[in-house]
Amino acid sequence: MNKLTIAQLQTHVYSDKMENIEMLTPLFWQVQAYHADLVCLPEMFNCPYETPNFPVYAEKEGGPVWTALSRLAAKFHVYLSAGSVPECDGEGRVYNTAYVFDRNGKQIARHRKVHLFDINVKGGQCFKESDTLTAGDSATVFDTEFGKMGLCICYDFRFPELARRMALEGANVILVPAAFNMTTGPAHWEVMFRSRAVDNQVFTVGTSPSRDMDSSYHAWGHSIVVSPWGTVLGQMDEKTGFQITEIDLDEVGEIREQLPLLKHRMENL
Amino acid sequence: MNKLTIAQLQTHVYSDKMENIEMLTPLFWQVQAYHADLVCLPEMFNCPYETPNFPVYAEKEGGPVWTALSRLAAKFHVYLSAGSVPECDGEGRVYNTAYVFDRNGKQIARHRKVHLFDINVKGGQCFKESDTLTAGDSATVFDTEFGKMGLCICYDFRFPELARRMALEGANVILVPAAFNMTTGPAHWEVMFRSRAVDNQVFTVGTSPSRDMDSSYHAWGHSIVVSPWGTVLGQMDEKTGFQITEIDLDEVGEIREQLPLLKHRMENL
Repeated sequence: MNKLTIAQLQTHVYSDKMENIEMLTPLFWQVQAYHADLVCLPEMFNCPYETPNFPVYAEKEGGPVWTALSRLAAKFHVYLSAGSVPECDGEGRVYNTAYVFDRNGKQIARHRKVHLFDINVKGGQCFKESDTLTAGDSATVFDTEFGKMGLCICYDFRFPELARRMALEGANVILVPAAFNMTTGPAHWEVMFRSRAVDNQVFTVGTSPSRDMDSSYHAWGHSIVVSPWGTVLGQMDEKTGFQITEIDLDEVGEIREQLPLLKHRMENL
Repeated sequence: MNKLTIAQLQTHVYSDKMENIEMLTPLFWQVQAYHADLVCLPEMFNCPYETPNFPVYAEKEGGPVWTALSRLAAKFHVYLSAGSVPECDGEGRVYNTAYVFDRNGKQIARHRKVHLFDINVKGGQCFKESDTLTAGDSATVFDTEFGKMGLCICYDFRFPELARRMALEGANVILVPAAFNMTTGPAHWEVMFRSRAVDNQVFTVGTSPSRDMDSSYHAWGHSIVVSPWGTVLGQMDEKTGFQITEIDLDEVGEIREQLPLLKHRMENL
């Protein structure tokens, strides 16, 4: 048994950037009662999801938002997958960036969204991240006391190549701050988290903002945790709240021994 | 509109090899009434799924089973994805092989199962194809009057790399003779066909034998067709029978235009 307790905070996104940070403290007190080891936040949890907002809300690594998140991790002595936030690099580029902090508040991972979300579904969702964002260019796997974890953001997870690469680099858990919408959510959210888990025999953890019908982008919500066998261990509805899921990391090795997909994979078919 | 009518024959597997061929003719008469363009048969439809049977039931390409299948395609003027059968190469090797014939009975594709099914699920399914089978070594995409199609067999479809490769080589439809079991079927059958369809924006067609509780291997059945949006267009239960599904191949291009996953894919992440 190698247990990890995950707390996913499916938060409401306020237009006041720092209000999104301030509201975290009472939530951290709540989930501390469940002995959470890892707290996960949603994609763009501090910035209403509209392309013109990204440069306006963006901060450099080490800025006020980053510092507050680092302090929260240290104060509550948890790993913090700090959703994603708009990050500027000081040279005019803005990224959709996910940070992870360890129990001491030290940054142990940074992923810049690689696949920008540019879609145009007839009668459905249109969005063009590339209007204001620059794409990252690398996959992200990092070490924790629970073993290696992978990290990517929302649309990144659409691409089986990236999940496969993280699994091959040793990830047993893949963390995905995400915000599917009312077109892609009902159609693809659950099947994506289940299939990436089954194909790579990893735990998948998707954390979404709650749905706000007063905002321009209506998130699907449904924050989810899936086991390496593809079982949905927990899935929320669309409302603001949190979800606690305890996972047993030994399951990864057990499943891989019984159904050795990664061993049977042909490298150069 | 670019319509293709698919007939999937979810057959019972008899221990008499040729009985499995003879019973096809009345079924072909039945599905002809629906103007089927493409008839699909299950994995190992002419050989009870047990490793010692494969060398015993195997025939060379062009043998009596192959010839009967070719004639059926020509007689009914349909494309025939002739499930899979044990094939011997005359040099001591036996393969799990899928043939496809065109409307004139000409062989237009041959796929030898690349990923042999060797699993050992605790309290569940155990099987070791590699005891008697040799693995194929290549992916299979072929031309039809409906455009390109991909072809693989059961466990092959577990590997996202192969489906991706078929899609990149132009397949709009992926045909998968398969026989999941009572362990993997309920857990992974539908999510696999749905996710490969969604990720690659292709139609996926899985054709299984019916369930025979008197045989040693209990097939899941549930022959399935999924659209490029991930919608299950048809799924059978476990019983012997057939399923007719009409698909519109134009949907592939429409979905790929709205949600350009293949365009957004990073080749060398």
